[in-house]
Amino acid sequence: MNDTAILLIDHQVGLQALVKDFDTVGFQNNVLALASIAKELHLPVVITASVPEGPNGPLMPEILEMFPDVAVVSRHGEVNAWDNPQFRAAVKKTGRKQLIMAGIVTDVCIAFPALSAIEEGFQVFAAVDASGTFNEVVRYASWDRMSQGGVQLMNWFSILCELTRDWRVHGQVMTDIIVKHLPEYKNTMITFNQTQSKN
Amino acid sequence: MNDTAILLIDHQVGLQALVKDFDTVGFQNNVLALASIAKELHLPVVITASVPEGPNGPLMPEILEMFPDVAVVSRHGEVNAWDNPQFRAAVKKTGRKQLIMAGIVTDVCIAFPALSAIEEGFQVFAAVDASGTFNEVVRYASWDRMSQGGVQLMNWFSILCELTRDWRVHGQVMTDIIVKHLPEYKNTMITFNQTQSKN
Amino acid sequence: MNDTAILLIDHQVGLQALVKDFDTVGFQNNVLALASIAKELHLPVVITASVPEGPNGPLMPEILEMFPDVAVVSRHGEVNAWDNPQFRAAVKKTGRKQLIMAGIVTDVCIAFPALSAIEEGFQVFAAVDASGTFNEVVRYASWDRMSQGGVQLMNWFSILCELTRDWRVHGQVMTDIIVKHLPEYKNTMITFNQTQSKN
Amino acid sequence: MNDTAILLIDHQVGLQALVKDFDTVGFQNNVLALASIAKELHLPVVITASVPEGPNGPLMPEILEMFPDVAVVSRHGEVNAWDNPQFRAAVKKTGRKQLIMAGIVTDVCIAFPALSAIEEGFQVFAAVDASGTFNEVVRYASWDRMSQGGVQLMNWFSILCELTRDWRVHGQVMTDIIVKHLPEYKNTMITFNQTQSKN
Amino acid sequence: MNDTAILLIDHQVGLQALVKDFDTVGFQNNVLALASIAKELHLPVVITASVPEGPNGPLMPEILEMFPDVAVVSRHGEVNAWDNPQFRAAVKKTGRKQLIMAGIVTDVCIAFPALSAIEEGFQVFAAVDASGTFNEVVRYASWDRMSQGGVQLMNWFSILCELTRDWRVHGQVMTDIIVKHLPEYKNTMITFNQTQSKN
Amino acid sequence: MNDTAILLIDHQVGLQALVKDFDTVGFQNNVLALASIAKELHLPVVITASVPEGPNGPLMPEILEMFPDVAVVSRHGEVNAWDNPQFRAAVKKTGRKQLIMAGIVTDVCIAFPALSAIEEGFQVFAAVDASGTFNEVVRYASWDRMSQGGVQLMNWFSILCELTRDWRVHGQVMTDIIVKHLPEYKNTMITFNQTQSKN
Amino acid sequence: MNDTAILLIDHQVGLQALVKDFDTVGFQNNVLALASIAKELHLPVVITASVPEGPNGPLMPEILEMFPDVAVVSRHGEVNAWDNPQFRAAVKKTGRKQLIMAGIVTDVCIAFPALSAIEEGFQVFAAVDASGTFNEVVRYASWDRMSQGGVQLMNWFSILCELTRDWRVHGQVMTDIIVKHLPEYKNTMITFNQTQSKN
Amino acid sequence: MNDTAILLIDHQVGLQALVKDFDTVGFQNNVLALASIAKELHLPVVITASVPEGPNGPLMPEILEMFPDVAVVSRHGEVNAWDNPQFRAAVKKTGRKQLIMAGIVTDVCIAFPALSAIEEGFQVFAAVDASGTFNEVVRYASWDRMSQGGVQLMNWFSILCELTRDWRVHGQVMTDIIVKHLPEYKNTMITFNQTQSKN
Repeated sequence: MNDTAILLIDHQVGLQALVKDFDTVGFQNNVLALASIAKELHLPVVITASVPEGPNGPLMPEILEMFPDVAVVSRHGEVNAWDNPQFRAAVKKTGRKQLIMAGIVTDVCIAFPALSAIEEGFQVFAAVDASGTFNEVVRYASWDRMSQGGVQLMNWFSILCELTRDWRVHGQVMTDIIVKHLPEYKNTMITFNQTQSKN
Repeated sequence: MNDTAILLIDHQVGLQALVKDFDTVGFQNNVLALASIAKELHLPVVITASVPEGPNGPLMPEILEMFPDVAVVSRHGEVNAWDNPQFRAAVKKTGRKQLIMAGIVTDVCIAFPALSAIEEGFQVFAAVDASGTFNEVVRYASWDRMSQGGVQLMNWFSILCELTRDWRVHGQVMTDIIVKHLPEYKNTMITFNQTQSKN
Repeated sequence: MNDTAILLIDHQVGLQALVKDFDTVGFQNNVLALASIAKELHLPVVITASVPEGPNGPLMPEILEMFPDVAVVSRHGEVNAWDNPQFRAAVKKTGRKQLIMAGIVTDVCIAFPALSAIEEGFQVFAAVDASGTFNEVVRYASWDRMSQGGVQLMNWFSILCELTRDWRVHGQVMTDIIVKHLPEYKNTMITFNQTQSKN
Repeated sequence: MNDTAILLIDHQVGLQALVKDFDTVGFQNNVLALASIAKELHLPVVITASVPEGPNGPLMPEILEMFPDVAVVSRHGEVNAWDNPQFRAAVKKTGRKQLIMAGIVTDVCIAFPALSAIEEGFQVFAAVDASGTFNEVVRYASWDRMSQGGVQLMNWFSILCELTRDWRVHGQVMTDIIVKHLPEYKNTMITFNQTQSKN
Repeated sequence: MNDTAILLIDHQVGLQALVKDFDTVGFQNNVLALASIAKELHLPVVITASVPEGPNGPLMPEILEMFPDVAVVSRHGEVNAWDNPQFRAAVKKTGRKQLIMAGIVTDVCIAFPALSAIEEGFQVFAAVDASGTFNEVVRYASWDRMSQGGVQLMNWFSILCELTRDWRVHGQVMTDIIVKHLPEYKNTMITFNQTQSKN
Repeated sequence: MNDTAILLIDHQVGLQALVKDFDTVGFQNNVLALASIAKELHLPVVITASVPEGPNGPLMPEILEMFPDVAVVSRHGEVNAWDNPQFRAAVKKTGRKQLIMAGIVTDVCIAFPALSAIEEGFQVFAAVDASGTFNEVVRYASWDRMSQGGVQLMNWFSILCELTRDWRVHGQVMTDIIVKHLPEYKNTMITFNQTQSKN
Repeated sequence: MNDTAILLIDHQVGLQALVKDFDTVGFQNNVLALASIAKELHLPVVITASVPEGPNGPLMPEILEMFPDVAVVSRHGEVNAWDNPQFRAAVKKTGRKQLIMAGIVTDVCIAFPALSAIEEGFQVFAAVDASGTFNEVVRYASWDRMSQGGVQLMNWFSILCELTRDWRVHGQVMTDIIVKHLPEYKNTMITFNQTQSKN
Repeated sequence: MNDTAILLIDHQVGLQALVKDFDTVGFQNNVLALASIAKELHLPVVITASVPEGPNGPLMPEILEMFPDVAVVSRHGEVNAWDNPQFRAAVKKTGRKQLIMAGIVTDVCIAFPALSAIEEGFQVFAAVDASGTFNEVVRYASWDRMSQGGVQLMNWFSILCELTRDWRVHGQVMTDIIVKHLPEYKNTMITFNQTQSKN
């Protein structure tokens, strides 16, 4: 956890119209769960957007509200965020060697910087359920390309668990995020707690 | 709208483990959207739960918070809510003849009272995306049985639109509910509004 | 419940190789759940098999063990069980006017006798998740034909609930069947009971 | 054909972000094929848009270009186009009693006016592959509601064939539309024609 | 069986490129199974093709070989076979009132003549697994329209069983068709027979 | 077989509400089939549960009954079972170098210890059909990550066959497990045996 | 082609009841297409069956008829055909180093000998569409395991093309197999040839 | 971009009848998008067809029109385009070492030359959404084989982005292609531009 940063790339409201491999409600939940992990565990976060003043639109407002102190790197041309010097500088400034990336669209905005970062010696994890794209064909092709290049494919829940590792240390953070983003688990907790409190 | 009531039946946290025909995050969003329609349009609401002190568990806490003044009808045996005198009385007390029903599980907790209410002369609408069940086979069989019996199958968004009918009259309510529960539409609104506000 | 009989038609081990619209483990669970409903609620049961000494094979052994006193009507030619005088006599001997039917294959062994029974004035319910066939195209076509003819499509769980109606009267039977055949619900019950027993 | 009009309802670019039950490329192709049928067969067309100056956005530009002489009915509040007097007047002015409707979203913008028009004695056909909505649950629920109300569900190709009826009379129109919108058929025609022309 | 005719409509090799709702190998198997039923049970058959000398191509050669004495009705313009006087005459000449129809594409070549025949007082059965079309949306829309109009949806196996009714009378025909077209059943028969013959 | 141990990780009743990539009936069947393999072949088994006295709930009772002599390692914080010294000690005490792992959820409770064990030189097999998780996206991402790390993906039936290798040696065990957990095969055996016994 | 042999493993009629990841008609077509490739190209073939006198049943009769001179290796216990000395001898006697394998079930009868043969230095190709198993989870897990071990995954059509390479040399064989097993291509050929022959 | 060539292989109208893993409208859109990338970025293009004067038919006319100056390499026997000396010469004449390939069918016409080119030291990218084949089983098997051999799987949009890299340099080309082939993005652009132009 001390060597990890989270990179949120192009989760812009206009670009979400391109995401068809997830239901939008579920996708936004996944994105915000990942963002919450960064926030609650105080991980360094790098956020970027591609031409947010154009049709791509601004970043999801929930992300902006969650990280008021993080300066968004607005790119004005580079498709691959890694090609943008400010972005690369922001990543390197975190001093972390393990990068968790998520964004829209998976095959471009994640696959490109993921492979670029691997080439520069970073260890890269793609948060594939907080990253979306056009359809399943593109999703699985981009997964294969990333995996072939050494990127590890993870999901927000396994990232949460990998970072926290122990309920005794991080139980409160884990519970907070689960209650907000994993209703199956929350439901079980409600029943359990209600029963407990009756005794 | 003046002749409509909304019936929320057995949206209990324990029973949600039986719902497999929807992703849980999306399902809860649909249920809360329907509940918001009732609340924002000031429709009479009847809420019931089956043995909430047992393994079925309490109602979703968000529903309870949304309607602090509605007394939940706790049933202690009747599977079909319509068999419960308090429930039936509460429905009739609304004075409404158009009933929108949603609940868990579709094939029992909705299909049974829906068909019972039709027999008593009510017009019944099943909110099928705020109602869940075991799998698609059961979902579509119960749809067929309800449709054969005269129940009309609707979804929360079409219910919202059918009740409001005109953006000039109910625009604010419609927007509020959409922003909370329909992110595809919200995203479009954000881009539009941001562009407008720049000028 | 006092006017209901259950008809199990051609659940033979050889014929199960024709059932492709359900996973076999799940399908057998559904069939046995329906059979248990009949047994636990002491409903009259009529069981038939088509040429069980041939490649269709014998009935599922679990069914035979469950109803040692029910004489299986072996048909030696009639595809539609309703064409078989012994079967028809056995059904009529129950004196019940509501028939719940399940069998293999849905489009023949259920659809044919269901429509025949409707013509003779019975009310017919097809237990569609305890009935299987070649693929989804055939399943949904046969559903449409049955529904058009007035057959009501149900599943074993809604049948259980429709027959029992009240947990206070039939709670033990309901629980027994659920524990054996509905593990989602059973799991919730285990947690609840364990928590209770600790206090 | 002489008693038919085509109603295109809310095919706006912003609303297309709500359509998730079709691939966008395929959906737009279906919409334009239906529009071409109207144009090539000189059917009266009524076009409407809901608040096109807002986030719903303008109609698909291809539709506007195809019907330069049709005045688009801009609605400024009515969800159900049938509630708008200008729309209703435009429909009635066509003098046609058979209405083919398509639009976004199926469960609202088609289902509502379709059922309204049926009530006023029109015969209504929903062009279901030129109409889109949030997901398959909503699609099939709205189909059931429309079918229950007497609406006939059709697709653009069967509409084309129902209207033209005879290749000897309308062969050129049929071929033109097929070549633009049904590439499977076009491919067969290319091979056939090339072979013919070699001889 | 004595009042039944089978109508094979436009099973042409060129049109099969339009059939995407079935795997081609499986679809051809279904078509030939239905054709075999007609042949083996000596039912009257009416066969038609739409412009077979054009890109639609000739009928499947297996069908032509199976019925050397049936004159194919070549239509040179009528989309709806029922609009063609020769076709209608051929149907009426059979003297049968129950018509089983199959063809390409379901939404046009089956739905149109099926509804036309119903209007003229025939009882119509659509063999839906021997009829194909563009995709599942079109398939299910056309099913709904046909069902609404009174057409009964069946599959080749249920048609075989409905016509033969009794293995003692038609066992050889049933077995022959099953061995050729229903390999699941054939496999069971092989094992059974081999075991029998060893004793 | 002499170098193999089976590790059952967190098959707790509360956690099963998180498993959405399998039907619950089928999933429990798979888990119990794997457990039966361990039991019938007398393989060393290590069982662990995460905070079983909390909302995760106790292990499936069938597992506890099957291995009355195995002390369950209750973890009180470690997400990755491999981080728990007792668990690691129990594994090492088996002296086996080939570990078959299954559990809930695949992406955490299997992927983490599987990769940890590989790093320590074990050969690891994930029993992927006795391991469940939230959805298919998470399932396939976790498969990719495990495969990239050298984990071999297997299913309970191939594990049974890989361990037994020869029906002449282990035929009784294989048959016993198949009869209980693989009904397709059982059905074939019933027909065969009945036919045999008649001679 | 001169260094290739084809191994057909356990395509027995009883075992086909275990194959649920393919439609049976399509699966048998794939198996026979692969067998035809061997026959038409005069490749050495090794055929084996597991206890064919038991419930697994005999091999598909079409395979036995196609290769009357190939002695089937009957195994009486070995699950992995490679463990059977006669089978291994038969393979080695072909003198070929490239082995194409297909069989039932993919995860056992193909994966095991495929990995065994790789270990002995053969180059192995799994004909995955002529190999079947329980469901898609098992299919893709076994694919991953084979791929990880160096097995190349192919399908019968790509195998045909890889072996023949040139229509000028093997056009007749290619056409013969396509006409029997690839109706999409056959249909195109019919139209083309008919058109040609008219000139 | 300066080291890249695009190879379009066998996108013939007759062969498209074999493509069942994509909707035809969407597939043709993908193919033409890829072709447009080549054209708009002035990349060298090599086009080949297999026996275009036979049943495979001519290339898609849109491709021929787009590249009037590219001589199509007609192969008269070689299945693997790489086996054809003219094709290989044309590729080598481009002087490019990065080859993007697309074609029909994926498992043969792309997989074979892709693996051949890798062996000769090229870097190969398969444009998997502009390449089609019989079904998903064949698609994913061929992906696995290509990936195992070092081919990188991409889609037309990620290829466009990888080649252009910067909107400031290639914005016009990117926009032109997006407007023609990616309607989700086009729709967002329309709304944005209309709003802008109002101010």
